[in-house]
Amino acid sequence: MDIKKYLKDKRELVDTFLTPYFDSLASPSVLKSAMSYSILAGGKRVRPILALASYEACGGTAEDIVPFASALELIHTYSLIHDDLPAMDNDDLRRGKPTSHKVFGEGMAVLAGDALLTEAFYLLSLQSLARVSVGRPALIRLIRDVAMAAGAYGMVGGQAEDILCENKTANGEDLAFIHAHKTGALITASVRMGGILANAGRKEFRALTRYGENIGLAFQIIDDILDVSGNTSELGKSTGSDERKKKLTFPAVYGIGPAARKAEGLVHEGIGALEDFSEKADPLKQIALYILRRRN
Amino acid sequence: MDIKKYLKDKRELVDTFLTPYFDSLASPSVLKSAMSYSILAGGKRVRPILALASYEACGGTAEDIVPFASALELIHTYSLIHDDLPAMDNDDLRRGKPTSHKVFGEGMAVLAGDALLTEAFYLLSLQSLARVSVGRPALIRLIRDVAMAAGAYGMVGGQAEDILCENKTANGEDLAFIHAHKTGALITASVRMGGILANAGRKEFRALTRYGENIGLAFQIIDDILDVSGNTSELGKSTGSDERKKKLTFPAVYGIGPAARKAEGLVHEGIGALEDFSEKADPLKQIALYILRRRN
Repeated sequence: MDIKKYLKDKRELVDTFLTPYFDSLASPSVLKSAMSYSILAGGKRVRPILALASYEACGGTAEDIVPFASALELIHTYSLIHDDLPAMDNDDLRRGKPTSHKVFGEGMAVLAGDALLTEAFYLLSLQSLARVSVGRPALIRLIRDVAMAAGAYGMVGGQAEDILCENKTANGEDLAFIHAHKTGALITASVRMGGILANAGRKEFRALTRYGENIGLAFQIIDDILDVSGNTSELGKSTGSDERKKKLTFPAVYGIGPAARKAEGLVHEGIGALEDFSEKADPLKQIALYILRRRN
Repeated sequence: MDIKKYLKDKRELVDTFLTPYFDSLASPSVLKSAMSYSILAGGKRVRPILALASYEACGGTAEDIVPFASALELIHTYSLIHDDLPAMDNDDLRRGKPTSHKVFGEGMAVLAGDALLTEAFYLLSLQSLARVSVGRPALIRLIRDVAMAAGAYGMVGGQAEDILCENKTANGEDLAFIHAHKTGALITASVRMGGILANAGRKEFRALTRYGENIGLAFQIIDDILDVSGNTSELGKSTGSDERKKKLTFPAVYGIGPAARKAEGLVHEGIGALEDFSEKADPLKQIALYILRRRN
């Protein structure tokens, strides 16, 4: 299969939903502009695509659950806006464009993030937008799973630990916690979303979770390696910022070579978790390999 | 009825849920401390109490829905933490204590707010904590209603407009928009929560909404009047801050006397909306009157 074409098609599917949705948002114009600015800045849509691919792996049709999958991008984007704030990572560039607070001011950037997070849960609670009827038990379970992954037990918890560990001496345990929570939790929830919406069986669901946990960590390791060895124009954000901020990262703790080998091992572990799936899980497997090779 | 006792009893009901819930939160300790610090700072619990009273007005037992009602306090508290940030209202004092960013730093305050908002949706999706079995359709509807009220169409939208209107010439239309959204939307959703969870009929539900809209606006007007005429130790926050920041408020636009009369009219309008309810709606009516008389 042509994974690049697959990713492009699915990204377009997500963007075809997000663009009119944010164009028609009825809210004060500057807030709406700030929300749209970051959401429509051309992200890779990794998390929605993982949800769509996982839904396909369980026998579903990707087109049917685009609004739910897109909600993950709202959560991811809000986290980037808040992370970029001067009080947090203080970044000026994101996805090749000035960060939200640089364009709209800090107060509006905080609010744009808040609004996107809230809008994500609004989207998840809207059954009418999806092309299939999703059972309410699945929807409630989905909301709970996403909230758990995004909040204090997941992404925000990881981000808090990340801040606390800046300037701290390298420590593999802290590092594992930060990565598993800051990035891993929402990526795992994205993969699990496909399983929840397709009513996957217990065993399938466990396999998807294992796949998600492994590639989530691999994704973050590659991100950190790219921050050291990538270049700003390819990445669309400033490189070397982890080192400047003395962030705890895999390359910093173990070196680039061992970190890359660790990522490779995780990706193969993730692919292995899907061994009982049909060829419908091929996109998930290819995405895992793509994560290893990505340059941005 | 003794409304002071009623408010105290209901506040204790909410606090009896919130205190152990936040004590047992499994998240990095500083984040957990920051979340607990603001949640357990002794708020009046107005929004949860409105939800409980509204549930009672529809024939329910308040004790049965405390976790759902408490989720409203998480949303309200997150909004206070973010509003107090230097990039927003830059307040040092809240509920008589230093604001979150003063104690934990700006980055952690942003994250504590993010985590509380997310946790609110987690709580709303947990059927197991409530003492009655709440139908999933009602739960989905509740999540959608709260998200709508808290996000870009509601509270965050009002907050964004509030920032944009600072230093602007007085304008009644902007003022009405800000108040209806910044404070009114979540207060209305709180009242509606009781109706949704009790499966209120259409007419009852409309009446609760009208009650909520009226007392929500009255609540904000009194808040603004107290900011001019109250005192810091009673209020637990700095007074005169609206004027310093040239905020658009009712007393600023119309004067204190007309603003107070407006609030009185709204409260009576709100009480009038409940005329078809039994005596079980007495607490809601008394709360409306209490809002007029409150000193903090």
